[in-house]
Amino acid sequence: MDNFRFHVPTDIRFGKDRLESELPQVLDTFGKTVLLVYGGGSIKKNGLYDQIVTLLKNNQNTLVELSGVEPNPRIETVRRGVELCRENQVDVILAVGGGSTIDCSKVIAVGIYSDQDAWDIVLGRQGYQGKGLPIVTILTLAATGSEMNAGAVISNMATNQKLGTSGPAMVPKVSFLDPQNTYTVPASQTAAGSADILSHLIESYFNVTEATDVQDFVSEGLMRSVIKHCPVALKEPENYDARANLMWASSIALNGLTRDGKHGVWSCHPMEHELSAFYDITHGVGLAILTPRWMAHVLSEQTVAKFAQYAKNVWGINETDSMKAAKQAIQATYDYFQACGIPMTLPEVGIDDEKFAEMAKQAVAHSMIKTAAFVPLDEAAVEAIYRDCLTESSYV
Amino acid sequence: MDNFRFHVPTDIRFGKDRLESELPQVLDTFGKTVLLVYGGGSIKKNGLYDQIVTLLKNNQNTLVELSGVEPNPRIETVRRGVELCRENQVDVILAVGGGSTIDCSKVIAVGIYSDQDAWDIVLGRQGYQGKGLPIVTILTLAATGSEMNAGAVISNMATNQKLGTSGPAMVPKVSFLDPQNTYTVPASQTAAGSADILSHLIESYFNVTEATDVQDFVSEGLMRSVIKHCPVALKEPENYDARANLMWASSIALNGLTRDGKHGVWSCHPMEHELSAFYDITHGVGLAILTPRWMAHVLSEQTVAKFAQYAKNVWGINETDSMKAAKQAIQATYDYFQACGIPMTLPEVGIDDEKFAEMAKQAVAHSMIKTAAFVPLDEAAVEAIYRDCLTESSYV
Repeated sequence: MDNFRFHVPTDIRFGKDRLESELPQVLDTFGKTVLLVYGGGSIKKNGLYDQIVTLLKNNQNTLVELSGVEPNPRIETVRRGVELCRENQVDVILAVGGGSTIDCSKVIAVGIYSDQDAWDIVLGRQGYQGKGLPIVTILTLAATGSEMNAGAVISNMATNQKLGTSGPAMVPKVSFLDPQNTYTVPASQTAAGSADILSHLIESYFNVTEATDVQDFVSEGLMRSVIKHCPVALKEPENYDARANLMWASSIALNGLTRDGKHGVWSCHPMEHELSAFYDITHGVGLAILTPRWMAHVLSEQTVAKFAQYAKNVWGINETDSMKAAKQAIQATYDYFQACGIPMTLPEVGIDDEKFAEMAKQAVAHSMIKTAAFVPLDEAAVEAIYRDCLTESSYV
Repeated sequence: MDNFRFHVPTDIRFGKDRLESELPQVLDTFGKTVLLVYGGGSIKKNGLYDQIVTLLKNNQNTLVELSGVEPNPRIETVRRGVELCRENQVDVILAVGGGSTIDCSKVIAVGIYSDQDAWDIVLGRQGYQGKGLPIVTILTLAATGSEMNAGAVISNMATNQKLGTSGPAMVPKVSFLDPQNTYTVPASQTAAGSADILSHLIESYFNVTEATDVQDFVSEGLMRSVIKHCPVALKEPENYDARANLMWASSIALNGLTRDGKHGVWSCHPMEHELSAFYDITHGVGLAILTPRWMAHVLSEQTVAKFAQYAKNVWGINETDSMKAAKQAIQATYDYFQACGIPMTLPEVGIDDEKFAEMAKQAVAHSMIKTAAFVPLDEAAVEAIYRDCLTESSYV
């Protein structure tokens, strides 16, 4: 196990109906002028927007709004948010939505104190040390874990770039996690969000650092929880317990608990970021498509032990031949995503092979998968994995 | 899943050799006058004391010492610490040790700002809201999880009471977790500490709240990690990876992650606290002795499903008959503790049946096990469980 620092000070308020009694008090800790950030308006349909506006009005807050945050949040929206904060002397950002809205809010929060253009902050990548406005979130989608970590991913469609950044000031101060706020999430987004959670776990699980059983056994437990509850939520969108388990799993899956103490970088996320950057597809769908193909690509005598562990502890596969168990687990992963209704080939989401070479080049250029991934992947390997996504796959 | 608040702001510095470069800076955040709290002197034998004193001297800190904190820390020691802090205008408490030292430091930290006697704070029990001095810890024993939570347990031998208290100000600000600092922990304490970790997990795992899979599956992973690594650490006391996995598991096992979202109270801890209060035995040993007997006592058609889950997911028992699987798991728990060298009957630790009735009465009086435990336990039930600990047990 590597040395690590684990410091996740987000105050999680988990459960039903906490906003009325807690949100005004929480916001008052930071000030009266609130930037309300949200996405495409689903919160207007399900009543959450009205509830919040009424609460804030009754609490004598000054409300500034930034709406229309994109599913892959754009740098232009961040810039707009920074301007709004400056013009209105905002005290606190209230992000209501999923990872996109929260990620956008994070870069706005630090952008206001920076002389740099917001895109330069993103280009600076990890470890931004500047200060930021406090962020409070109300989560409406179980997926990215952004509600309980320091990371943000922002897209620049002008340059076809989708890049991650992070910094201590980007960690939300308080996050409200009410599973009921995910009841209206459509099946496709529920499935994609669950794929995103699983991918976060899988990316850190398949890692070369030795003796990280605490992280890995915890990760296996979280994977089993998502695998169990996503199908329930798909069938019964208002099943509180299924939504609750997905929501809490999403936060823990990417708050450092399953990743800290390990070195090396992720594999599928850099490859997926190019798909989203070039084609603006749903992040979780891209991850679900790539993951089993990536697994099959990196499976070898060197890696089979970890795959056999994954087979046994996550999927309950009792096959004693490690290689057979590994392939069954890859198949189980593929079948699971497919059973959740996720389109499992790139053509189904409108992507052909035209830009594979260019995206592979960018995936390697924007990350360290060529040198520091579980199994290092060069441009040719990435392109081969993209190519495997053109048709349906089978592993057993 | 119940509503819960999860807020664990402790800044964990995990890994090898971080003190030189980080401790002075961390302490300087809070001030120059440091109360160094430690136990029986093992840190003088292994060099940790000298290292810290030299570091603090070179950093121009004023050092005040409170040594001799007992394995079950006494209220008199807390009072002595409060006086030292007041006399010397201490800025920050540096607790170097295991749970006893940290627990003692926590009540000192809040005691200094209180008009109450320290024992009255303890008697106030959960949710002490007063402020406290900042606490920094250097952990030397993987066991209680006190390094990353708000709780403390203090003993009053004059009244035969061992009681828990907690409050936000008792959460350590920074905790240094260097697995190397547990190399010199003797086998008996390594085993008892691991039993303590397992007990924290088991106590919350066997709980009546529905649909807490995230908490339970994570808990199963942590249990498997402890079960795997304790025997390694016993055999090879300087095995870094084994010590690292035990240490990180100890912190996560009791920071709320496996407990929040559930209601009800623990069972074995209240029963064990009376053993320690009356006989001053090692807490983890008392827990190991009680746990399988308690399990056997509460196993029934109503509870068998959870025991069968425990059998399968923690012990890898594939028996399909739930009741048989449950009994095998209880036996596995018993055998595991015994194989770790823990004395598994009360007479082996010098306890006979003389005070069973009195301790049972106190266990019920000092807790809510009679009304809110996984299976409610009255005085007669507690006494029966104590009685089962008089001789060796077998469950299959």
